[in-house]
Amino acid sequence: MTRNSTDATSDRIIAAATAEFARHGIAGARVERIAKEARTGKERVYAYFRSKEALYRFVAGRELAAMADAVQLDPTDLPGYAGRMHDHAVRHPERHRLMLWGQLELPAGQAPADDPLQESLRRKVELLRKAQDAGHLDPAWAPEDILVFVSQLALSWAGQTDLTPVGEERDAFLAARRAAIVAAVQRLFPATGSDATPTAAGS
Amino acid sequence: MTRNSTDATSDRIIAAATAEFARHGIAGARVERIAKEARTGKERVYAYFRSKEALYRFVAGRELAAMADAVQLDPTDLPGYAGRMHDHAVRHPERHRLMLWGQLELPAGQAPADDPLQESLRRKVELLRKAQDAGHLDPAWAPEDILVFVSQLALSWAGQTDLTPVGEERDAFLAARRAAIVAAVQRLFPATGSDATPTAAGS
Repeated sequence: MTRNSTDATSDRIIAAATAEFARHGIAGARVERIAKEARTGKERVYAYFRSKEALYRFVAGRELAAMADAVQLDPTDLPGYAGRMHDHAVRHPERHRLMLWGQLELPAGQAPADDPLQESLRRKVELLRKAQDAGHLDPAWAPEDILVFVSQLALSWAGQTDLTPVGEERDAFLAARRAAIVAAVQRLFPATGSDATPTAAGS
Repeated sequence: MTRNSTDATSDRIIAAATAEFARHGIAGARVERIAKEARTGKERVYAYFRSKEALYRFVAGRELAAMADAVQLDPTDLPGYAGRMHDHAVRHPERHRLMLWGQLELPAGQAPADDPLQESLRRKVELLRKAQDAGHLDPAWAPEDILVFVSQLALSWAGQTDLTPVGEERDAFLAARRAAIVAAVQRLFPATGSDATPTAAGS
């Protein structure tokens, strides 16, 4: 996308697209509805983004970056990271829906080389690998597995809306689930803390 | 749904609906397309199932039951269970897509009391609770957490199609991921084996 003096229009398109994709997914999203909500025309949307899928990838990448800012990956404290990720997902369910649609709807193995999702994953894997080299994380795990397992555990409950009580029980229920997530990640990938002695590798 | 002499028609509807929902999700599925594929009419579909959502809940419950048959939950060997669940998801990606759509599209907290998904979860939680009482599983965990964590870990990689290499590397990659899943579940919820001495509770 080229940024120029019509930034205001593109900002409105991005905001409208984020809401539309979170709600309807990629196939269900209507570019016409996005254009209308952004007070512009369909052809303007396609002038910025070459396709509906490209628009989805752009807004999903943007949300992922926002999430990475809000939930800093600290490889010396993965339990804390998982807890923050759980909090974020519970607080912003629509952002997580946005990402999930992509897993279901994007054709497999066809991400463009500059896909921001892939890029963000590569950066995180690199961070974990360095923490393994520094003795903060057991080097017996592949860093990809660490990343995916922590995020799967962290998001265990945020998406289980049918299993989560509504009403006044909700907060206590989610607090207990959060504590269990942190405990599970602590057992798998114990926090060392940046000022603690690194654990013996392979312990 | 009432079963009667027109079982052949309802079987065709169920088969067509399973494929349609796996591919397009709930909102994207077209009852007309399902009816056509099942060589019947839309009104017949609605005679069996009162709504598209009811039809989805029926086929998703059916798939879940088939999966539970294929991947037996053995509370004394959760690592083995996780490995089998991973295998099943890798072998039948369309069945897992079918379940994921429900998480995204079904309205939260509105499952009917006889929802087969809820029913299947309740049964599994009960099995885990009994295994905790018998000393096979650490009773410090809530059984719901055990169930969700094991299934999140088991399905870590089956859905990550963008992170999975295609071509000849694929099998070795997935075998390594499977081994990591089994190792992670073993660390969290060690297998005792039905003939082994139960682990000390809380160990």
